[in-house]
Amino acid sequence: MASSSYSNSPCAACKFLRRKCMPDCIFAPYFPPEEPQKFANVHKIFGASNVSKLLNEVLPHQREDAVNSLAYEAEARMKDPVYGCVGAISVLQRQVIRLQKELDATNADLIRYACNEMPAANPQFARRMGHGGVSYDQSSGIYYPSPWNDDPCGERGDGSV
Amino acid sequence: MASSSYSNSPCAACKFLRRKCMPDCIFAPYFPPEEPQKFANVHKIFGASNVSKLLNEVLPHQREDAVNSLAYEAEARMKDPVYGCVGAISVLQRQVIRLQKELDATNADLIRYACNEMPAANPQFARRMGHGGVSYDQSSGIYYPSPWNDDPCGERGDGSV
Repeated sequence: MASSSYSNSPCAACKFLRRKCMPDCIFAPYFPPEEPQKFANVHKIFGASNVSKLLNEVLPHQREDAVNSLAYEAEARMKDPVYGCVGAISVLQRQVIRLQKELDATNADLIRYACNEMPAANPQFARRMGHGGVSYDQSSGIYYPSPWNDDPCGERGDGSV
Repeated sequence: MASSSYSNSPCAACKFLRRKCMPDCIFAPYFPPEEPQKFANVHKIFGASNVSKLLNEVLPHQREDAVNSLAYEAEARMKDPVYGCVGAISVLQRQVIRLQKELDATNADLIRYACNEMPAANPQFARRMGHGGVSYDQSSGIYYPSPWNDDPCGERGDGSV
């Protein structure tokens, strides 16, 4: 974390806003002069006033993380003005669903081997069955994998799992 | 998509900003009067002026998606002022890495069965080996799983995959 408030150079925020950088500048510890684009991005997307308000609303030890997450969001929005970092969330959610389905299918194949229901040379070895097994948490908008279901070889002797 | 520009009610944005809602209001199609919180959130986090600028920068058919992604980000930032929706990205990235490791380990177990290297009752059945197999794309900040590696039973006869 660079602090420019005690140096001669104004921080990147004060330089951008063409104002004197005071020793108690709220931006200075998080926007060093050698990273001018970081402040330019958050200023363009959120506005300096909103960033300042947000920094004052969180605890001092949380401010660096807050600035870095704002900078990440701002950069993502500048790269993709329509979706911003929500685009990354969609990609990751699809990855989680795909991986969970693949894992469910691979576990199902493995259980068939363990239960001696599938011969080693079975061409269905690579088949992927797409069980699902992912639940959606509406409050966070995140897909969570469901816990692994036990007793795979128990009741069902028909090859299904 | 609700449009209040042709009704008597001002849109949620104009009502919030206490201004007359004109027929060509940029906000009206995306901020209907019955969803006042949606505009209040994006106004608090991004500022009305920044939202208006962004809407004018994207194509008309992209504006609804742009507003919805801004509303998602704004709501996430209000729930979690430190990390906002970047917190969801971190959770999802960890999920992708964990699932990819589990999948690699399960595939490794499956290959051992297929290669007849592991007896059906082997207690190592459930062991997870954590191969990795995930690559990080610095430009998007997203972890991508690596493609599946072929020829699992070929050269190496030592049980490793």
